[in-house]
Amino acid sequence: MTEHTAQHTVRSYDEELKFLAHKIAEMGGHAERMVEQAVTAMVNSDNALAQRVISDDLILDAGQREIDEKAITIIGKRQPMAIDLREVIGTIRISSDLERIGDLGKNIAKRVVAVTDTRQTLSVYRGLQTIAELALTQLKDVLDAYATRSVQQVNIVRERDDEIDALYTSLFRELLTYMMEDPRNISACTHLLFCAKNIERIGDHATNIAETVYYIVTGSQLPAERPKEDQTHSIVVDEARQP
Amino acid sequence: MTEHTAQHTVRSYDEELKFLAHKIAEMGGHAERMVEQAVTAMVNSDNALAQRVISDDLILDAGQREIDEKAITIIGKRQPMAIDLREVIGTIRISSDLERIGDLGKNIAKRVVAVTDTRQTLSVYRGLQTIAELALTQLKDVLDAYATRSVQQVNIVRERDDEIDALYTSLFRELLTYMMEDPRNISACTHLLFCAKNIERIGDHATNIAETVYYIVTGSQLPAERPKEDQTHSIVVDEARQP
Repeated sequence: MTEHTAQHTVRSYDEELKFLAHKIAEMGGHAERMVEQAVTAMVNSDNALAQRVISDDLILDAGQREIDEKAITIIGKRQPMAIDLREVIGTIRISSDLERIGDLGKNIAKRVVAVTDTRQTLSVYRGLQTIAELALTQLKDVLDAYATRSVQQVNIVRERDDEIDALYTSLFRELLTYMMEDPRNISACTHLLFCAKNIERIGDHATNIAETVYYIVTGSQLPAERPKEDQTHSIVVDEARQP
Repeated sequence: MTEHTAQHTVRSYDEELKFLAHKIAEMGGHAERMVEQAVTAMVNSDNALAQRVISDDLILDAGQREIDEKAITIIGKRQPMAIDLREVIGTIRISSDLERIGDLGKNIAKRVVAVTDTRQTLSVYRGLQTIAELALTQLKDVLDAYATRSVQQVNIVRERDDEIDALYTSLFRELLTYMMEDPRNISACTHLLFCAKNIERIGDHATNIAETVYYIVTGSQLPAERPKEDQTHSIVVDEARQP
């Protein structure tokens, strides 16, 4: 093998890894936009925007397939070791989380139509926006942690997931209260509950990605002590206390 | 390398692959049991059983970690190609679906306490059991498809996911109706709605596993035409139509 060929091989391997990282950044940006627009569509009862989000989901599905195929080709062809191998396995995991975030965004968009005719009090939409902003910050920061291979950033994202859970719990209570006040709110509030739950799940996926970044950088798994469950499971809003 | 060493190497590689397959079967059996017991706990308001399901989830978390670490070690050490590589990557994917199924089972178990004091009509619990049985059949069949590398079985599982979606949609409507009939049902029915949604998601994870099995056996990805979204997003139960 001439020196030229060796260089070429190495450079093209490096380019393959860069391609994966680039694709993850692209999918990440797309997932962020989908979630942002889905929540905006819900807040403004914008059915046209919701439709666009729904059809945009195909792009993330295709992105995940492309990353999966490319990653497996690279493993077969290059037989990467250590950090390179973790990098490739990491992109498979991250693309799966991003694809699922897109699904959750699409699911919010699909619910817009069911809530349009029975607009709820402004406070609910504000609550939804607040959780969504936090989840989107998590997503942005974890994509940043991936791009810069920052373990410090990983820890920040992990810690902040509790804030999303707390906001979700409070919105859950609020929505149950509106349902009890007036049965005409029940359908819409149920869909909004699922939207809130979807956003809480998006936060969990950001945390998953944080754990994958940690694994790529350090080669070890983070301890599993962080509970990823929401805390609403035992909430019982007492009907008797309602006005 | 002596012939003896070569044989030993090959045999131990084979044993490593078998270990992964065995671990998946073990995790699968554990996930099945968790879901089954979680639904039984919900149906019988059995808080002690629910607590056992919640603590059992740790076993699946540990299983996923073990499979992940082992799979990556195998890739690094053995540099598998073609079907062996797909096998190893496949176990990473499947263990992640099984771990998530465990989470969903745990989430059902956690909601038992919130529903205990406001028992709902028997029909709701029957509905929940019916979807759960179907989802568990899906899980059993897809683990069977994995064990026997059966593409035919994969298709059966994929087709049947529609039945789960249909049952979920009907239970969703029923629960909304009970909420509208009596506001005292709202808290409990909301938790039961999330339980139904969790079971519907378990069905989706069984479908994901089916797709991974297809990929392991054939080396190609199944077309993405199957929608994995539930169909309840546009349900609006009209309060005026209630008794």
